[in-house]
Amino acid sequence: MKFAILFGGASYEHEISIVSAIALKSLLKTQPTFIFLNAEGEFYHIPADRMKSDHFGNGEYQKDEKLSLAKGGFEKRGLLKSRRLEGFDTVINLVHGAEGEDGTIAALLDFYGIAYIGPGKEASVLSFNKWFTKLYAAGLGIETVAYQLLGIDQKRELEFDFPVIVKPLRLGSSIGVSVVKKREDLDYALDVAFEFDDTVLIEPFIEGIEEYNVAGCRTESGWRIGTVEAPAKSEYLDFDQKYLDFSRTESVRAAEIPDELEKELIEAFKSVYGALFEGALIRCDFFVKEGKILLNEINPIPGSMANYLFDDFESVLEDLAASLPKKRTITPDYAYINRVRSAKGPKTGSGR
Amino acid sequence: MKFAILFGGASYEHEISIVSAIALKSLLKTQPTFIFLNAEGEFYHIPADRMKSDHFGNGEYQKDEKLSLAKGGFEKRGLLKSRRLEGFDTVINLVHGAEGEDGTIAALLDFYGIAYIGPGKEASVLSFNKWFTKLYAAGLGIETVAYQLLGIDQKRELEFDFPVIVKPLRLGSSIGVSVVKKREDLDYALDVAFEFDDTVLIEPFIEGIEEYNVAGCRTESGWRIGTVEAPAKSEYLDFDQKYLDFSRTESVRAAEIPDELEKELIEAFKSVYGALFEGALIRCDFFVKEGKILLNEINPIPGSMANYLFDDFESVLEDLAASLPKKRTITPDYAYINRVRSAKGPKTGSGR
Repeated sequence: MKFAILFGGASYEHEISIVSAIALKSLLKTQPTFIFLNAEGEFYHIPADRMKSDHFGNGEYQKDEKLSLAKGGFEKRGLLKSRRLEGFDTVINLVHGAEGEDGTIAALLDFYGIAYIGPGKEASVLSFNKWFTKLYAAGLGIETVAYQLLGIDQKRELEFDFPVIVKPLRLGSSIGVSVVKKREDLDYALDVAFEFDDTVLIEPFIEGIEEYNVAGCRTESGWRIGTVEAPAKSEYLDFDQKYLDFSRTESVRAAEIPDELEKELIEAFKSVYGALFEGALIRCDFFVKEGKILLNEINPIPGSMANYLFDDFESVLEDLAASLPKKRTITPDYAYINRVRSAKGPKTGSGR
Repeated sequence: MKFAILFGGASYEHEISIVSAIALKSLLKTQPTFIFLNAEGEFYHIPADRMKSDHFGNGEYQKDEKLSLAKGGFEKRGLLKSRRLEGFDTVINLVHGAEGEDGTIAALLDFYGIAYIGPGKEASVLSFNKWFTKLYAAGLGIETVAYQLLGIDQKRELEFDFPVIVKPLRLGSSIGVSVVKKREDLDYALDVAFEFDDTVLIEPFIEGIEEYNVAGCRTESGWRIGTVEAPAKSEYLDFDQKYLDFSRTESVRAAEIPDELEKELIEAFKSVYGALFEGALIRCDFFVKEGKILLNEINPIPGSMANYLFDDFESVLEDLAASLPKKRTITPDYAYINRVRSAKGPKTGSGR
């Protein structure tokens, strides 16, 4: 299996995605193809030896070859004819945040018939929008933290006591997220969150809660579940802390938890993964409160693909790439049009 | 406002979409541009005088000019240079069923920066998947009919007494839908539904229930709500009956219902529309059972845009086109990459 890594995108996590792609470069034994999507929606083929953050920060990448989407892949358009970009059979969608995680990239790759590892359109929409994640969890019978939605034009009234946590409805990661301890700080936190979305989600902030991350995927050879991790604790990981994370490649120590809890966390993960996330390697962040598991968020494209949670990361990707969901082919036979035409034919009315 | 009508698509409703586009042709005073998407994912510019069903049924359309998606619109690729397809400023997404209603077309048009009337990615996913519609309704506090999901590999056990109605999870319209009155007929109905989706949704079939359709949209000048219609009754509209509907252009008589109920139906419609369906003209199908309103389904691209429910259909489209959701522009400044690089610089660790 030869991979192409698609990264960048028009999102607040554009740079994060670059860092994530650079981290993956050093991890894969078989050198992947790198396809960069800039914020203007242009694709570029980046030679592996130019995969350094400077190359993007200073705009040098614009000297690399430009690509266009075409049926079955990407092409380099020449003056007289176009050449296909060769060298890979499966794209890894590593565009974090909007575009990558909101269903845009999934739809583009579906439409152009390009095989990819990553969340599909439904999976993207349900994990990117934090409200929909809660509705999905409810549908599965998995608990989440209580919440309220607040629109940018609504009165700023809270249903919870302080402290609360304020999150833009649709951003991945911790961007625009604040823990608010007292009334006086609420407006500022809301203003920040509304910079990123017209709706925010407000939850009671539960102090000292246990948090566990479970990453994995289902493949034709079964489940591939990574080490269950208890992420580093601080009151709340801020953007910088959380995102230095995206360059992580060293493996982690397993969370020290009872076997029973670990089993329950993995069961909850499998339930969330369901049929919805087929073809993706995802990470679920769970809370454990008084022995009960709550789904906090689903990250459908975790930073550097949560490689550090797997002993044999490359084989997980290989396995997953061989297990991508099949698409039904639909070929219209125009039988219906013919029927409608004959039904309408000698003015017998249209059925009503 | 000049419109382009995008129709066709790789879906079981491909032909329906052609019929729907032909119906719209006769309705708009300003002749729109017609863009056909064939089942292979190729776009064609169809001259208005060739907008007849034969043109597609016999493959004649392939002699029309081929189009490619490009930043801001469609282009006709020439040997030496490409020409932009001119003549419209807003696309009407009239691709019924998969691709049009599953978020693919929305994502393509978003990605290429083309203004469109139609459901966005989130709206598409939540209305196309009947389970997600129920979860969304639950989130809004609107009731739906009880249901169970059944996967293709699951044991065929029912939670309800007969009669039940069996529906493929993701198809629009009545395709693959059956009313099953007795145990002996269940397997056949499930086999049919599983032809179209790996998951089916099963509901108790409620006899003699009242059904009402409400169509409309929110624009900057306020709500535009069509005539509340009680659709023609038959035990269950089959594919042919329901789809002759797509060529409807004659206006309907309003449902004869008490003012209070009509008001409640419109309120329920507005709640469903919310912020989710901004930019789309949708139709909600409601049931009324013992005075209580239940959401049956959301049709985010109704046949021929439910034109027959509006007195001044073209002005609704004009108004909606002037009220499309704004997109936030994101311009990465690479500040983060620079920060990561300095943080990683003289080996001070990665924050963990």
